[in-house]
Amino acid sequence: MSTGEYLVRISVHLPADMAANQRAALADAERRRGSELIAVGAITRIWRLPGRSANVGIWRADSATELHQLISSLPLHPWMIVDVEAIAFHPLEAAA
Amino acid sequence: MSTGEYLVRISVHLPADMAANQRAALADAERRRGSELIAVGAITRIWRLPGRSANVGIWRADSATELHQLISSLPLHPWMIVDVEAIAFHPLEAAA
Amino acid sequence: MSTGEYLVRISVHLPADMAANQRAALADAERRRGSELIAVGAITRIWRLPGRSANVGIWRADSATELHQLISSLPLHPWMIVDVEAIAFHPLEAAA
Amino acid sequence: MSTGEYLVRISVHLPADMAANQRAALADAERRRGSELIAVGAITRIWRLPGRSANVGIWRADSATELHQLISSLPLHPWMIVDVEAIAFHPLEAAA
Amino acid sequence: MSTGEYLVRISVHLPADMAANQRAALADAERRRGSELIAVGAITRIWRLPGRSANVGIWRADSATELHQLISSLPLHPWMIVDVEAIAFHPLEAAA
Amino acid sequence: MSTGEYLVRISVHLPADMAANQRAALADAERRRGSELIAVGAITRIWRLPGRSANVGIWRADSATELHQLISSLPLHPWMIVDVEAIAFHPLEAAA
Amino acid sequence: MSTGEYLVRISVHLPADMAANQRAALADAERRRGSELIAVGAITRIWRLPGRSANVGIWRADSATELHQLISSLPLHPWMIVDVEAIAFHPLEAAA
Amino acid sequence: MSTGEYLVRISVHLPADMAANQRAALADAERRRGSELIAVGAITRIWRLPGRSANVGIWRADSATELHQLISSLPLHPWMIVDVEAIAFHPLEAAA
Amino acid sequence: MSTGEYLVRISVHLPADMAANQRAALADAERRRGSELIAVGAITRIWRLPGRSANVGIWRADSATELHQLISSLPLHPWMIVDVEAIAFHPLEAAA
Amino acid sequence: MSTGEYLVRISVHLPADMAANQRAALADAERRRGSELIAVGAITRIWRLPGRSANVGIWRADSATELHQLISSLPLHPWMIVDVEAIAFHPLEAAA
Repeated sequence: MSTGEYLVRISVHLPADMAANQRAALADAERRRGSELIAVGAITRIWRLPGRSANVGIWRADSATELHQLISSLPLHPWMIVDVEAIAFHPLEAAA
Repeated sequence: MSTGEYLVRISVHLPADMAANQRAALADAERRRGSELIAVGAITRIWRLPGRSANVGIWRADSATELHQLISSLPLHPWMIVDVEAIAFHPLEAAA
Repeated sequence: MSTGEYLVRISVHLPADMAANQRAALADAERRRGSELIAVGAITRIWRLPGRSANVGIWRADSATELHQLISSLPLHPWMIVDVEAIAFHPLEAAA
Repeated sequence: MSTGEYLVRISVHLPADMAANQRAALADAERRRGSELIAVGAITRIWRLPGRSANVGIWRADSATELHQLISSLPLHPWMIVDVEAIAFHPLEAAA
Repeated sequence: MSTGEYLVRISVHLPADMAANQRAALADAERRRGSELIAVGAITRIWRLPGRSANVGIWRADSATELHQLISSLPLHPWMIVDVEAIAFHPLEAAA
Repeated sequence: MSTGEYLVRISVHLPADMAANQRAALADAERRRGSELIAVGAITRIWRLPGRSANVGIWRADSATELHQLISSLPLHPWMIVDVEAIAFHPLEAAA
Repeated sequence: MSTGEYLVRISVHLPADMAANQRAALADAERRRGSELIAVGAITRIWRLPGRSANVGIWRADSATELHQLISSLPLHPWMIVDVEAIAFHPLEAAA
Repeated sequence: MSTGEYLVRISVHLPADMAANQRAALADAERRRGSELIAVGAITRIWRLPGRSANVGIWRADSATELHQLISSLPLHPWMIVDVEAIAFHPLEAAA
Repeated sequence: MSTGEYLVRISVHLPADMAANQRAALADAERRRGSELIAVGAITRIWRLPGRSANVGIWRADSATELHQLISSLPLHPWMIVDVEAIAFHPLEAAA
Repeated sequence: MSTGEYLVRISVHLPADMAANQRAALADAERRRGSELIAVGAITRIWRLPGRSANVGIWRADSATELHQLISSLPLHPWMIVDVEAIAFHPLEAAA
């Protein structure tokens, strides 16, 4: 099986005038969906970029097509700027 | 099977002082390897960028790891600048 | 005849406050017009950029002028950022 | 017939250690080939970018493929950085 | 007399909520003023950038100061992003 | 203890005229030092960027000062371009 | 203890239609929180970038995670664009 | 005394929906303050960038701190993007 | 007469292996030609960019064509990177 | 007195074929001159950028002209890329 890894950089840009309760509901839903993606192994690591509303993560998917479905399943997706890099196996990890 | 497609942009930068016969031998070998990659379906389309020593192509591979092996099998690879984008299925192609 | 190929990169940026039914109607119309462009051979391949509201495609047109008419016939055109590259025949495709 | 126009930006970067007579011979050959391209209508206008070894021109060709052949026929082509933009008919020129 | 040429790149960014009739009136006025600028020789060539609400043109003016007056006489000027390059006579045009 | 994580992007640019045996010796030494950095936990993950002589990795160090010592202990360091980003704990990993 | 230093660049972008009293209240709160961060040694130096609503500062934190908490404790944080660089000890400071 | 010179690039971005009379009042106030800055020698030269709502000027100030006060005294300052470069004495001006 | 002004940014990049006496002779010749350009009013102001082998200056010429001749008359011209901006009269200077 | 502060970013690019003893002699001289600049207060803080042959520092000088003399007094100056930003007093430091 050829599951691949992707380095995914996401920043979130909510409109300044979004109502506080919509903002909170979205944050809740985002956390729940994020936890699911970790639980099923779609996200293997994720970090905050300090000082920003942004993160960088290692995602696993069978293809770019599946990756698109995974990322766009996030409730905050309509407000995201997303950058994807396909990353390949490095021989240094063979021995490890 | 999850063979994926990649948009690959390659430019070639040979040193100004490379001998003419090394240059010709490399160009020959590059053409042969390029034809093989087309024959096996690793490159499905390829275009020149007009006016440049550069091309853009649609590559197929099971993973970014296999794609790395395919691209680095090109004889001119040590003199290439390579840019890879994973590209996903577009629903408009479903009907086509 | 000198029909040429173009690598066209399109991203769509709808305003946050667009009504849901206008959004849905536009998406429907976009799909219909996209299918027509594929049917007539104006778009020969198209891919999603994973995680984004964006695509990259191979378009065919007799000239940049015709290409402009084709792209601007898309219902979402007023909300698109478009980048066009003229691409040329690559000799590796001659043998294929 | 669908001859198209292209905005072509070219800068020339000769190696510092190129012999003066090779440099002069190349400049001569470049001028001759440039004049031919103007005479046949492949270059319709050309300007220097002030202070630089660079120019911008309006080229005409039946396709990006022919344009590649025209640009790469220039003797200085191996030392050029080339940028091509396909440009389309503007309705303001219809009345003119 | 030292009339100079300028390569001018203009893109237009109208606000999404501009009323359709204001939009149409502006487009009409823009076409009329554009035609005048062509008629008086201020714009000698102009092309659309395919797929975009943008153009590139060759403008003539006695100075950057006059060029500013010409460009800012366009009705759509408040919504334009403008980029100007002074371009110089190229010796290849002497023989032509 | 406050060991931090860093996203480190490294590309290697060897001079075209480096002797083959020096190149091989450096590659060997690089592999050995890379394996040590993995063994001691300084590099926790590393990937190739497909098609390039470049990698991206997750490094661990007590400080940017220690990170500098770790990266500059690589035999290929004099020929590297290095880009470092400090990355922070993401709350989604708390539950995982 | 491995407290690290960070070069942090912050620009503030308040919406044009924010009420004057909200703006003033935020500026007050920002000043108070900024003074606290200086008092506890989280910001060791800070400068204005002349002519802009922006600053650059030297921050101290045990980790990128703590740095994120410190920066996001600023009342203007939702309107900030933030850029962080981890910076390392320089041997020239050893003797000083 | 060490008065320094600065190359200052300013572009102005007024919101599309600003009332015409506020716009006119701001333009008036800007002209008055600009004239004062010229009269006191804070601005020694200023030019329009052709086609844009932007200028570039040579400013004089005792320090970047004073320069910030001068620039931010302009009535349009809240709508400006400002870029400052410190520039140094050139020996060619010694003889002049 | 329509003499125009240009903001010209020049950086100099001499090859590392240029002989010291050639370097000194070029610097001398450059100073002499620079002084002449100031004496005839082609350069009205010039500044060093601190820390760099680079300058920014205000040049006067009847056209971009004459400006090209002036800049390329500098002995260091073959080793320069040059950037030219046409700049226009600013109404604030009318009163001064 | 109006001594100003500057944020100075320096990267060093020695040619690959520089002899080891010249390299060592330059590094020694650089360290000595760097220490002097710290001792006289011209450099008040300096950090390494981790993984690179580069640093960022806070410099003090009476003017950009003096700053140029200070930076260009470094023995490695001919191989440096230097970027200078004038930085201004921030009111948060008044209370500190």
